Amino acid sequence: MSATATAQRVFNFSAGPAALPLPVLQQVQEELLCLPGAGASVLEISHRGKVFVDIIESAESTIRSLLGISDDYAVLFLQGGAALQFSMIPANLLRGTDKTAQYLLTGSWGKKAFAEARKEGKIEAAYDAKDSNYDHVPSASDYTVRDDAAYLYYCSNETIQGVQYDAEPPCPASVPLVSDASSDFLCRPLPIDKYGIVYACAQKNAGPAGVTVVVIRRDLLDRGSENLPGYLNYNNHAAAGSMWNTPPTFAVYVLGKVARWLADDIGGLDAMEKQNREKSQLLYDVIDAHSDFYKGHARAGSRSMMNVTFTLPSDELQSKFLASAADHDLSSLKGHRSVGGIRASIYNAMPREGVESLAGFMKDFASKNG
Amino acid sequence: MSATATAQRVFNFSAGPAALPLPVLQQVQEELLCLPGAGASVLEISHRGKVFVDIIESAESTIRSLLGISDDYAVLFLQGGAALQFSMIPANLLRGTDKTAQYLLTGSWGKKAFAEARKEGKIEAAYDAKDSNYDHVPSASDYTVRDDAAYLYYCSNETIQGVQYDAEPPCPASVPLVSDASSDFLCRPLPIDKYGIVYACAQKNAGPAGVTVVVIRRDLLDRGSENLPGYLNYNNHAAAGSMWNTPPTFAVYVLGKVARWLADDIGGLDAMEKQNREKSQLLYDVIDAHSDFYKGHARAGSRSMMNVTFTLPSDELQSKFLASAADHDLSSLKGHRSVGGIRASIYNAMPREGVESLAGFMKDFASKNG
Repeated sequence: MSATATAQRVFNFSAGPAALPLPVLQQVQEELLCLPGAGASVLEISHRGKVFVDIIESAESTIRSLLGISDDYAVLFLQGGAALQFSMIPANLLRGTDKTAQYLLTGSWGKKAFAEARKEGKIEAAYDAKDSNYDHVPSASDYTVRDDAAYLYYCSNETIQGVQYDAEPPCPASVPLVSDASSDFLCRPLPIDKYGIVYACAQKNAGPAGVTVVVIRRDLLDRGSENLPGYLNYNNHAAAGSMWNTPPTFAVYVLGKVARWLADDIGGLDAMEKQNREKSQLLYDVIDAHSDFYKGHARAGSRSMMNVTFTLPSDELQSKFLASAADHDLSSLKGHRSVGGIRASIYNAMPREGVESLAGFMKDFASKNG
Repeated sequence: MSATATAQRVFNFSAGPAALPLPVLQQVQEELLCLPGAGASVLEISHRGKVFVDIIESAESTIRSLLGISDDYAVLFLQGGAALQFSMIPANLLRGTDKTAQYLLTGSWGKKAFAEARKEGKIEAAYDAKDSNYDHVPSASDYTVRDDAAYLYYCSNETIQGVQYDAEPPCPASVPLVSDASSDFLCRPLPIDKYGIVYACAQKNAGPAGVTVVVIRRDLLDRGSENLPGYLNYNNHAAAGSMWNTPPTFAVYVLGKVARWLADDIGGLDAMEKQNREKSQLLYDVIDAHSDFYKGHARAGSRSMMNVTFTLPSDELQSKFLASAADHDLSSLKGHRSVGGIRASIYNAMPREGVESLAGFMKDFASKNG
């Protein structure tokens, strides 16, 4: 059964939920009926029992170790996705203050977060890349941050536009830097000490849909009012070790296995970043070598390692590209409806051979149709 | 591998997350590496692709069919568990009004919901079973409902106390009846038309942790202000068919399979209720036959089909009971820390043979230690 199932798998360039490491899926499958020592499936055990407590503590400690997260930060496993964080961040850090929260807008996800924050207090776009159709990230001289801002918010990788920050945007020490790292969390090391909050829904680079990791500096935990809906108050979750209510147990279990795979099989985040740079370069090299045929969306210097976005000379050629790619077992390459074109999402779990296969297909397609 | 894993499984009386039907777990295991037709695991596919859209639509239609839910109601699949519903219900139906929301308090979960609602507006306990330590549900003459109440809220089954309503509490037609059915959803048919909202986190009777089903009458959808955090507004989720943001895809997939098992293998909710009544009666018969040894918590008429709670003559005997039960592959029988004693959670997926095994053990233990 397993061999057949593995053979049926294609290279899946979905933007999220997205490919997971095959060894992780194989472990999950093997343990699904009965988790060793539990007498039951991981889907069936109490979150308060020793078996699951070990699972969630191990997931947290592996993530702490991968990113070098100190005890100055809490690591939370929440539900509701990035969408709920769009509200939780201003509800905890902005609501009830006279401060202004500043946002760097470099794509669709940052704009969604900005729209939700408007309900909670004063907000301001410190930078908006709208005029260039969100094809780049700002440099330090492009924006200014108020010394008393509630926080400075940015999205480290915009999946729809394929635009990624190469490093943290400069931010005064007095202002908490907040990052939506949903689509590039664990793709490379992060200097956590620069952040107030880094969060990521798991389903792009770190695990299945249904769990969101929030890394939050502990001094920010008690900024939320006690009158907030209980689930929206970070302090409740931190005080209870993510057990304020039943956590999404299976998603945490898979997330922990993905983190373990990063540490043991890949060799940590430096090694992962090297692989990711090489994988994305394979595709950008094809785009640049056939610049009369493929047109990349992101400017050089802002190109994403995770989502490679480009267009072809016509809609007809794009449709033909997608159909022909599917025939070559290269799936889910259609760009987001708001941008169009092609998007190859090549997160951590996409093997190099999948990217090589796509790069080869792209060269061949350009030669035949260019 | 499967045969060994199945043999290692014990009878798991966990209160939640809890036992799932073995045929469902076997299907999930079989498909885990590669969902037929998808070329990828269900954990890896886009929620907007045809394969997952079919999964979520099928889950919804099976639940609609099992409960006879008309188009007057929306069926939503949300994250955040019952805990987020404790806030979403008053945030949508009470906040910003002059009305009072009334609650029937018959156990721990109702009290938690009541505490959260206090943040959103005027609330009132129409009934509180505190003086009898939450051992029963009220009768119609025990409480009154305001004709202009924002809603009347109750928890149909209290897992910690083992107290369950046999039918809906009377409520004027002008007042939306709201039920937390987290621990007895799909255990029996429900007259949906009596409700404004019925909701259930899945991890007790309907699926894995990480998804909450909300059945809501459509005329209630637009009561939430546009200034609510977006995720908390029912209207957003209903308008987008539970795709306002990425749903918890795997949990929805398993929930759909459990619903299919109820329809096809069990034969629907009438058949399920008959099994559940018989299973719980097996245990209550032992308690009543050994009433000098086992003392049931719930009064007759309020006894739960889902959670059978009782105490033994001493703490020592309770510890001995739990240790000896574990030796007989009967696990997770310890009562909740707030009530103590023994709790046997026997949701839909607990097979009759598991209950028979426990009943036999209880008789034997009483004879030897009584």
